Amino acid sequence: MRYELYYWPEIQGRGEFVRLALEDAGADYVDVARLPNRGMAAMTRFLESRSAEQPPFAPPFLKAGKLVIAQTANILFYLGPRLGLVPKNEASRLWTHQLQLTIADWVSEVHDTHHPISGGLYYGEQKREAKRRSADFTAERLPKFLGYFEQILQRRPTASDYLLSKAVSYVDLSTFQMIASLRYAFPRAMARLEPKHPRLLALHDRVSARPRIAAYLSSERRLPFNQQDIFRHYPELDA
Amino acid sequence: MRYELYYWPEIQGRGEFVRLALEDAGADYVDVARLPNRGMAAMTRFLESRSAEQPPFAPPFLKAGKLVIAQTANILFYLGPRLGLVPKNEASRLWTHQLQLTIADWVSEVHDTHHPISGGLYYGEQKREAKRRSADFTAERLPKFLGYFEQILQRRPTASDYLLSKAVSYVDLSTFQMIASLRYAFPRAMARLEPKHPRLLALHDRVSARPRIAAYLSSERRLPFNQQDIFRHYPELDA
Repeated sequence: MRYELYYWPEIQGRGEFVRLALEDAGADYVDVARLPNRGMAAMTRFLESRSAEQPPFAPPFLKAGKLVIAQTANILFYLGPRLGLVPKNEASRLWTHQLQLTIADWVSEVHDTHHPISGGLYYGEQKREAKRRSADFTAERLPKFLGYFEQILQRRPTASDYLLSKAVSYVDLSTFQMIASLRYAFPRAMARLEPKHPRLLALHDRVSARPRIAAYLSSERRLPFNQQDIFRHYPELDA
Repeated sequence: MRYELYYWPEIQGRGEFVRLALEDAGADYVDVARLPNRGMAAMTRFLESRSAEQPPFAPPFLKAGKLVIAQTANILFYLGPRLGLVPKNEASRLWTHQLQLTIADWVSEVHDTHHPISGGLYYGEQKREAKRRSADFTAERLPKFLGYFEQILQRRPTASDYLLSKAVSYVDLSTFQMIASLRYAFPRAMARLEPKHPRLLALHDRVSARPRIAAYLSSERRLPFNQQDIFRHYPELDA
């Protein structure tokens, strides 16, 4: 099946967690809104449809045959077993999804470091609040999230390359994306925290060296980090 | 099976979405942290365990036999088919979960109306920012979320009592909880918006009249809304 991913065409954002899974699996997919000509119009038409019975609240969403699935973690829950990126038993699927939902919470908190008041206002209109929120994020929340994932790697009964086992899962790809993005957005905070999280950094390196991921990251399909994205680098927010 | 729910014993919070599902289904469950004597200690012991291989990031979490499941929407995804609160086919389960995840995002935004800077600071320490964020929430976000769920009810091909069909699902129970909680937290904003969302209000009334839900709401098991909870009533935030 050819999957159709719908997401904003100029940012990595939440869509990137889905792109990484599709890329690692070598899946047949189209990144619809990035298609030349009518791509973005197709996404807009879908979002503005007044007849869809199961409308997405927001991108990303995935068309898979007749299904339209929204919410990043939900898309990955659906794709996981189909792409061989999660064990098929229920316990593993729930645990992987639980971790993915924790990453979703983490992403929202990152977004709010630069937009603590409103997504509808410019950063410059909420800069003072952003400084306060970011100071809390880098001092309290970032260490908490990093520590949580490091601890999961540490507690595995046998040494293993990835969060679940020796086999990669989609939440490993998402964890790679978090580390890479946080290094872009908060280089100083990350430089300070990285020495305490060696297993997480090894996981990042292991994912980025996977052949299909490495090929993807060096391709034009991988959009650059940028200042319209969820992860943004404002030096004044990186204490 | 007797389910064990672990959640903060003095608030409705995120745990309430799980409680409502268990109550509506008449499930056998224990609200562990509310047990006299050692209840809260049991939850703390679990959260602070240094050996759990699959630790929750935060409450609520559910013990179901050998499984420990965290993240509210994930718990409901697991419980749904077991409690008869979602159709068993994959498409319906994904759609219901997608709606539940949108509710999870909505809940986080409500939390941040009174804590836009940090969950670790008192409300009084971020009151100015809370006013700005709440003004945006009541003007932009609240109408968007309410309108989204109203529209789903409106677009159903045949008139139906609930979001998915004539049968109740767990996301209907959660939608009831959102309306009830928003009325507590933002009575003025809700009074202004309610006339535009008749189907949503009818859904709220229909859920609250379900015999087991009605019995639960009038029991001592239903904690009162309060100012330590996610939904809080600060008149100055309710424009």
